[in-house]
Amino acid sequence: MDFNKRALALHRKNKGKIEIKSKVSVKTKNDLSTVYTPGVGAVSLAIAKDKKASFLLTNRSNTIAIVTDGSAILGLGNIGPEAGMPVMEGKSIIFKEFAGVDAIPLCINTQDAEEIIKFCKYIEPSFSGINLEDISAPRCFTILERLEKELTIPVFHDDQDGTAIVITAALINACRATNRVLRELNIVINGAGAAGLAIANLLLCHGIKNIILLDSQGIVYQGRAKMNPYKSRIALKTNKNKIRGDLTKALAGADVFIGVSVGKVLKKNVIKLMNQEPIIFAAANPIPEIIPKDAIAAGASIVGTGRSDFPNQINNALAFPGVFRGLLDGHFSNFTLKMKASAAIALAYTIKKPTKSRILPNIKDKNVVKAIAEAIKTCNN
Amino acid sequence: MDFNKRALALHRKNKGKIEIKSKVSVKTKNDLSTVYTPGVGAVSLAIAKDKKASFLLTNRSNTIAIVTDGSAILGLGNIGPEAGMPVMEGKSIIFKEFAGVDAIPLCINTQDAEEIIKFCKYIEPSFSGINLEDISAPRCFTILERLEKELTIPVFHDDQDGTAIVITAALINACRATNRVLRELNIVINGAGAAGLAIANLLLCHGIKNIILLDSQGIVYQGRAKMNPYKSRIALKTNKNKIRGDLTKALAGADVFIGVSVGKVLKKNVIKLMNQEPIIFAAANPIPEIIPKDAIAAGASIVGTGRSDFPNQINNALAFPGVFRGLLDGHFSNFTLKMKASAAIALAYTIKKPTKSRILPNIKDKNVVKAIAEAIKTCNN
Repeated sequence: MDFNKRALALHRKNKGKIEIKSKVSVKTKNDLSTVYTPGVGAVSLAIAKDKKASFLLTNRSNTIAIVTDGSAILGLGNIGPEAGMPVMEGKSIIFKEFAGVDAIPLCINTQDAEEIIKFCKYIEPSFSGINLEDISAPRCFTILERLEKELTIPVFHDDQDGTAIVITAALINACRATNRVLRELNIVINGAGAAGLAIANLLLCHGIKNIILLDSQGIVYQGRAKMNPYKSRIALKTNKNKIRGDLTKALAGADVFIGVSVGKVLKKNVIKLMNQEPIIFAAANPIPEIIPKDAIAAGASIVGTGRSDFPNQINNALAFPGVFRGLLDGHFSNFTLKMKASAAIALAYTIKKPTKSRILPNIKDKNVVKAIAEAIKTCNN
Repeated sequence: MDFNKRALALHRKNKGKIEIKSKVSVKTKNDLSTVYTPGVGAVSLAIAKDKKASFLLTNRSNTIAIVTDGSAILGLGNIGPEAGMPVMEGKSIIFKEFAGVDAIPLCINTQDAEEIIKFCKYIEPSFSGINLEDISAPRCFTILERLEKELTIPVFHDDQDGTAIVITAALINACRATNRVLRELNIVINGAGAAGLAIANLLLCHGIKNIILLDSQGIVYQGRAKMNPYKSRIALKTNKNKIRGDLTKALAGADVFIGVSVGKVLKKNVIKLMNQEPIIFAAANPIPEIIPKDAIAAGASIVGTGRSDFPNQINNALAFPGVFRGLLDGHFSNFTLKMKASAAIALAYTIKKPTKSRILPNIKDKNVVKAIAEAIKTCNN
């Protein structure tokens, strides 16, 4: 099926995908006097007396903002805020359909980190959470870190947190399917942008000791040149032996390849340098780092990609609806690392018996949102 | 009926009044691949090539933002952005119910005019119009003027434009009901804030020569002390005889009193100083400048208030849905003074034969939105 053609036709026909709906009746004059003036004044005054009442008397408790600056839309790069809207509307309807969350897309016309931070602080009174989306690294790290400190509502960057949760869940189940122990794996992450660093941090949180990251300059190691502060920081916690070199060097003796980079960079002969039965997550979109059949031919035991037309789809939509359902239901002010770790475990264990070709659940599985939300809600920070 | 009690109960029960709804099906895996990745990528690329395509391929063409800083919520004053939300949600459902417009409330956490201007510029790529709401004077003048110049989408401040359109329509029909000529009226506007100045400007546009404004310091005249630049500017175009003094002085020989001030400031004996059969619009909320029965007793010919429990309700909800329906359908980039004048005339002429007790149509009259939208759409700027 030609999804591109189909998508263009559907978007043109419907003029986008979301609309506003009233939750109450606006039929009679009495309705109007209740939902609007004069009655609404009493509701405003109740909130003026106690700001927290806005969570009880408006839709705020179920509403989040999806904020993007259009700098890293899908794999398409810095194509601007207007071009980001179809993706954000898509996320919005997935939020609503899967988790009942009302998500408002705000594609904004600035790529200045300080301005984006200010913007999110300005909109805080209207929302219960902020889903940052498709903001390029390293600005996304600054923005997320600052907002986590400066906002009283939780913040989530899908390209960091969402990807990290799904990749970690996939890895947990790859271990379960092949009787391996997560902590003992040697892991190589190709890509040290938004996703790469977030994955590394979440895997460290799961007790994994041996992680090597690579960026376009090669292996990341402590003291290397050409590193932003975020790479320097992760270099302190990974690659203990300060290995230097390229992907070939990194993968020698590795158990896991996690690709969050660009298409076709992983070659068959390099997979052969890895340990027995390697796990390959080639998550670059739309063209993975290696095509699954090539990876299998080179000896891969388990292969996952970002694509829906191969098995083991690594899809962020498995994480974000449940994450916000949990954050909203728990009335949390922060999305902690422990919650992220719990979400990954919960997502993994929605599959009772993982197999090599089924390490992640189907996106339509209703238990997924429930399990992740419950894990977050019951997390003691 | 106790609307306050009723409103609190309704808002608590429903947790606010608006939600997001999907316009498309998200049931099957193929649906997902069309509304989200991978298909959505083609839609984003089409917009990246031509930004204007965002009006065709997303809900942008039907979406506006309702932006408030919470500084002048209803008659309640500076009660903050959280407390503004119930009012903005109310507007949102009126926009949808009456005009099919999707309006997103954004109650923001800054009252700095420059920051509000920047905020609106940042959100421009996601919207086709901005409804500023309940922002106090004189900041609202600066914000509206600057945004009219700096945005490529139309901007409307309900407390200025909305009130001016409805009051002007009411005055047109008061003249029709009593066989008077609009241009010949002597008009006193009590209040020189957001509404007062906007009303004066729109009446000037209709060719009215004799207007006197008052603020808390008394009559506004050219060269007076204690005036912001916006009052100084209107002083050049009104009160040609530079009359000084208080409301009593202003109303001597006036035909029309327009109150956009505070409750109970108009006394019966002062009405008696006005010309025969005076027109009294006492629009302060919730307590009007004078109670209709007192105004009638003092000789008023026609009385209008902001209240739904008296005849001739001056209600902004008569204007804003139709205004934005027209602006969106006409794909306009500005809301011009000529459009505002046309909207007022169109609103007035939805009533075929105005009478003293019926100078404005019922809010539920479906012709209102249609007539205003059509007037704006067919306006040659």
